Amino acid sequence: MARPLILHDDRLFPADPTVRGIARELYATVAALPIISPHGHTDPAWFATNEPFRDATDLLLAPDHYVFRMLYSQGVALDDLKVPRKSGVPATDPRAAWKLFAKNFHLFRGTPSWIWLNHVFSKVFGFTEFLGEDNADAYFDGINEALATDAFRPRALFDRFNIETLATTEGPHDPLKHHKAIRESGWGGHVITAYRPDAVIDFEDERGPRAFERFAEVSGQDVYSWKGYLEAHRLRRAAFIEAGATSSDHGHPTAATADLSDAETESLFQSLVKGDVTPEKAELFRAQMLTEMAKMSLEDGLVMQIHPGSHRNHNVGLLESHGRDKGADIPVGTEYVQALKPLLTRLGNDKRLSIILFTLDETTYSRELAPLAGHYPTLKLGPSWWFHDSPEGMMRFREQVTETAGFYNTVGFNDDTRAFLSIPARHDVARRVDSAFLGRMVSEHRMDLVEAQELIVDLTYNLPKKAYKLDQPRPLPAPALAAE
Amino acid sequence: MARPLILHDDRLFPADPTVRGIARELYATVAALPIISPHGHTDPAWFATNEPFRDATDLLLAPDHYVFRMLYSQGVALDDLKVPRKSGVPATDPRAAWKLFAKNFHLFRGTPSWIWLNHVFSKVFGFTEFLGEDNADAYFDGINEALATDAFRPRALFDRFNIETLATTEGPHDPLKHHKAIRESGWGGHVITAYRPDAVIDFEDERGPRAFERFAEVSGQDVYSWKGYLEAHRLRRAAFIEAGATSSDHGHPTAATADLSDAETESLFQSLVKGDVTPEKAELFRAQMLTEMAKMSLEDGLVMQIHPGSHRNHNVGLLESHGRDKGADIPVGTEYVQALKPLLTRLGNDKRLSIILFTLDETTYSRELAPLAGHYPTLKLGPSWWFHDSPEGMMRFREQVTETAGFYNTVGFNDDTRAFLSIPARHDVARRVDSAFLGRMVSEHRMDLVEAQELIVDLTYNLPKKAYKLDQPRPLPAPALAAE
Amino acid sequence: MARPLILHDDRLFPADPTVRGIARELYATVAALPIISPHGHTDPAWFATNEPFRDATDLLLAPDHYVFRMLYSQGVALDDLKVPRKSGVPATDPRAAWKLFAKNFHLFRGTPSWIWLNHVFSKVFGFTEFLGEDNADAYFDGINEALATDAFRPRALFDRFNIETLATTEGPHDPLKHHKAIRESGWGGHVITAYRPDAVIDFEDERGPRAFERFAEVSGQDVYSWKGYLEAHRLRRAAFIEAGATSSDHGHPTAATADLSDAETESLFQSLVKGDVTPEKAELFRAQMLTEMAKMSLEDGLVMQIHPGSHRNHNVGLLESHGRDKGADIPVGTEYVQALKPLLTRLGNDKRLSIILFTLDETTYSRELAPLAGHYPTLKLGPSWWFHDSPEGMMRFREQVTETAGFYNTVGFNDDTRAFLSIPARHDVARRVDSAFLGRMVSEHRMDLVEAQELIVDLTYNLPKKAYKLDQPRPLPAPALAAE
Repeated sequence: MARPLILHDDRLFPADPTVRGIARELYATVAALPIISPHGHTDPAWFATNEPFRDATDLLLAPDHYVFRMLYSQGVALDDLKVPRKSGVPATDPRAAWKLFAKNFHLFRGTPSWIWLNHVFSKVFGFTEFLGEDNADAYFDGINEALATDAFRPRALFDRFNIETLATTEGPHDPLKHHKAIRESGWGGHVITAYRPDAVIDFEDERGPRAFERFAEVSGQDVYSWKGYLEAHRLRRAAFIEAGATSSDHGHPTAATADLSDAETESLFQSLVKGDVTPEKAELFRAQMLTEMAKMSLEDGLVMQIHPGSHRNHNVGLLESHGRDKGADIPVGTEYVQALKPLLTRLGNDKRLSIILFTLDETTYSRELAPLAGHYPTLKLGPSWWFHDSPEGMMRFREQVTETAGFYNTVGFNDDTRAFLSIPARHDVARRVDSAFLGRMVSEHRMDLVEAQELIVDLTYNLPKKAYKLDQPRPLPAPALAAE
Repeated sequence: MARPLILHDDRLFPADPTVRGIARELYATVAALPIISPHGHTDPAWFATNEPFRDATDLLLAPDHYVFRMLYSQGVALDDLKVPRKSGVPATDPRAAWKLFAKNFHLFRGTPSWIWLNHVFSKVFGFTEFLGEDNADAYFDGINEALATDAFRPRALFDRFNIETLATTEGPHDPLKHHKAIRESGWGGHVITAYRPDAVIDFEDERGPRAFERFAEVSGQDVYSWKGYLEAHRLRRAAFIEAGATSSDHGHPTAATADLSDAETESLFQSLVKGDVTPEKAELFRAQMLTEMAKMSLEDGLVMQIHPGSHRNHNVGLLESHGRDKGADIPVGTEYVQALKPLLTRLGNDKRLSIILFTLDETTYSRELAPLAGHYPTLKLGPSWWFHDSPEGMMRFREQVTETAGFYNTVGFNDDTRAFLSIPARHDVARRVDSAFLGRMVSEHRMDLVEAQELIVDLTYNLPKKAYKLDQPRPLPAPALAAE
Repeated sequence: MARPLILHDDRLFPADPTVRGIARELYATVAALPIISPHGHTDPAWFATNEPFRDATDLLLAPDHYVFRMLYSQGVALDDLKVPRKSGVPATDPRAAWKLFAKNFHLFRGTPSWIWLNHVFSKVFGFTEFLGEDNADAYFDGINEALATDAFRPRALFDRFNIETLATTEGPHDPLKHHKAIRESGWGGHVITAYRPDAVIDFEDERGPRAFERFAEVSGQDVYSWKGYLEAHRLRRAAFIEAGATSSDHGHPTAATADLSDAETESLFQSLVKGDVTPEKAELFRAQMLTEMAKMSLEDGLVMQIHPGSHRNHNVGLLESHGRDKGADIPVGTEYVQALKPLLTRLGNDKRLSIILFTLDETTYSRELAPLAGHYPTLKLGPSWWFHDSPEGMMRFREQVTETAGFYNTVGFNDDTRAFLSIPARHDVARRVDSAFLGRMVSEHRMDLVEAQELIVDLTYNLPKKAYKLDQPRPLPAPALAAE
């Protein structure tokens, strides 16, 4: 029997009436603010072509590793969910996949996916009953019908979601044609890119050789020589900046940095390019490249983001059959204090540089990251990330970071998602949890309401804009000029 | 002056009236459910012989390392508590030991022992005043008088405690005669065993040589040859399954696994058997044996439990004078992501295999264990363990695990105790803390009451039965047939 | 527009009326108890000379690394805050520095500095508006005027703050003349010292050579010979005890201990003294010296404090320009179980020895420290330290430590501060957070009110006195005899 799906106005607020009252008041001031989404993984092709999304399974289930990992963990076969294999998309009926998902929806109880999906079902599609086996068909048909309408095309949703800025992520070898198309389309949505060079920095990444080829093509440089490689980075960073980028992003296995001499670095690079790759040399090159990227940031102003500590593709069999990003990335313990020292010794006091640190290892919040960010002018802390992008995770972040780093060494919320429809849900969770945290602070007389009111706006809107340099005058998009 | 000992109906529920009201309602639905105790260390001899327990000190104080460790930490001599030495039980007057305990009972404030002991004193023995120096004699006498009655014999308490299934733990060298006696006794209590082969797997365990001898005797195999050793495991696992076992249990220093070739494993084993033991080789063999046990589980269906991360017998002097298990086991940092990879690479996607992971290192809840269990079909998470079997520990477990692993990759509560009388108290704490956690979820509109009502029953009863395969038809106990 | 600065009577108490009511009642019983401050870093010269403090910037801003680190992290130059360089104090106008601080006061929202500073502004100086840009001058003038009065001289504040005992910290090479002057002054304030030998134990400390010279001078021993070095320690410990010391303090990079033979130790020492210093040898010597200090404690009764796990002076450039203690000490992961084993194997069961452990790595609370302290008679746990001396940090400490170590293996609060005026604020926070924690325990029926009432007095007053041996009869201060 289906139960009513109602997003309660006070969801995620503590039950205590005093705290809840303050949280509600704080949240009310930011609930309708535009979304700043400075770090994420949506597909720019959606906004370039504005083609309708295909169907419920293709949009919400098969590509979302948060969702299918949980089903897989409980014995559901990925083929039955129509999750693509390396050899192609399974022939599974998308409706059957959806029904299997619906039947197992209870597995998501207590997870952020439950919150996000119900938000999407209720607010985006207008469903009024919880998803279950009984109404799986109705859901599937209803979603598909909606997706076929103009109101559910990507740009319409972007506008409806009140997104002020949305950053995607591309590799340096990406020609950025979708971003070009967006700018030339006349559409006013502010979709920008971010510079993510991992594939041409990590010599242990199996995508490396192909990425290098394309990096050479798109930059016109001899990327197999150290000078050409560096110049290619400089050129591509400039092209990315032209496509709106204000940040680079670095998803390394560890937070290691290095500060080698130019000669040492060149020699290391050449050895790696020749194929003499060992784990130690690959790690050292990644470490050195963070410093090289930081040096380029001094010149071109890109904010650096460092996202370390994920053991990628832990499931060896699944990597072989299904490829990367299939829900088998597992966090590992991550050390920052020694790891960042070479870079910080070189550039940590240079106010021109801004580095935003992320972690999947929550033990570093109070032990390493807050003390580092509470001292070095270059460092700020990104929000609770990935598995910790959740109500409990966000609350732990604030509780463990704030006392040492304060609020102003944090940068607001990043949704970090490829699940476009969940973006409003995710930002809503962040606004609610921050309101709840501040509500508790006020109720315990640890700040007054005026301060909390300023802070909730800062955390929601001002800090991300400032940290990602989105508060600076930017050139009007070309198409706006050419739109007539 | 003695204070009234009252177990408040709302104990362990948050003070907030909304949360408390929901928690109370949820708890009411499970308070009287039978106890599933699938992992513990009670003595099967109690149920085989059904002899009365001796006295208060012998039952509640001298064997309970949770209790005497705290007293010892505050300067009380173990001899004065009648804790056995290797050379024998001290001649201490048991009443004097009890009075010393009573005098220091305030040391347990804020600890789970305080909760468990007061539950036992109140619910099992009917005391109405807190234990203290003044009433120590009355307690001692009252407990002893009760223990002398039939109502306090082991089987009567088992029935009174409403235990549906109780698992003990035995080594492979154990002939399981007590379990045989229980089955043949005609008593209907479902007491089963579990297969804990550490003593014949860990070549650094001082109990090894004697255990190997008995392993050979009881299995009739040449356990000093690799083939005989494996066959002995197979035979003993079968015998344990006949004695009701549905699980094996592995208490290794680390979570390391390995996947060596058969030839490498045999060679390693032979070298160890010959006495060529190094820490590295002992560790590698333990690691490989987890994989060997997993392979046997594919055949015989035993659920694997892995309990790593305790530095056993840290107190060298105490180990010499008093032997093992004297409250000096200290947790150490424990890594799972790399450690489990060899086993998971081999068998992690095989749905026939079920592995339940435990930890004493809470930092791994959100960082490693929940992400692993939220992906691999073979993995589930055991409850908060040992030092973390406590209200705060249980709450941290739910808060840190649920968002990534969900509820359905957890397995309900394990009391893990040898303190038989505390079993109802421990399960009661778990039911209350889960009710409190779910109460908060409902009060914050993160799930609805219908979901919470289903979940509290699942967490209390259905999940442990399913995870430990206790929900499957089992042969009627032999004695029930032969009882006439 | 300035907002009223009001320290709410219920600050730091949970909003829930039940918990708050109990917390308020508990706090009321300890709010006015004298302050026991057994570990801190105030300057004994203040109490010896009783000279007035200079001005607001010199007292509250420039020397407080909690304060200027946050400003620095947000791009404020240390020179502009008048923070001393190695080359001297910047010529910055102290009023301008204060105004810059005032303008940025919002950066401290959510931090303990915000609480402490507002407590000082309100309770010590009587301000009734929050500090801000508008009233920065009024604050600066008001503070300076107050400081010029007799009521704000160090001894008057000491008395006003109701400090029963205040410990400072000196190196063994310190001649303790200020402490002598205090005793001889006839003033009754109980200011004692503590023995902190790091500078003559850590051969990697750049202060070492000068400290050794002074150690030789003040002890009259040949401190470059092993026998003379040990004898110098013995003599200086005796002199410190004469100056009231009841504890030694050891701020090592790690918690490593060793138990070398005398011959090995002497050989190690001689090699280091000759300048053959490697990180491994320096670490081993520090490790061994903890055991040597413990052995001396058996003789002279000093309580040992071990404060490991800070990566000191992480900012290399700042160390060069500004020297030590400039807000760039960063915690690192710290292991205790293996590290302490050599010392504990030797002396861990000896009740004459008392060791108080601290940590900056909160992951060790529940995993290592509480289990260790809940077993070994020698071990107790110091309060949440430094970055964790904060409301959230204190609450995490109680939540993560109590269930395994109990309350009686903890030692009450240490302010650990050099910011004299903040001492009452810091102790007030501790009393409030402990009241809140106990209030929750009582509200959840995990202890009764009588127990909580005893505990709040123990945590505030009795435990620190007992743990630091301040509850023992002490010789009347010499000046009291000579005062006529």
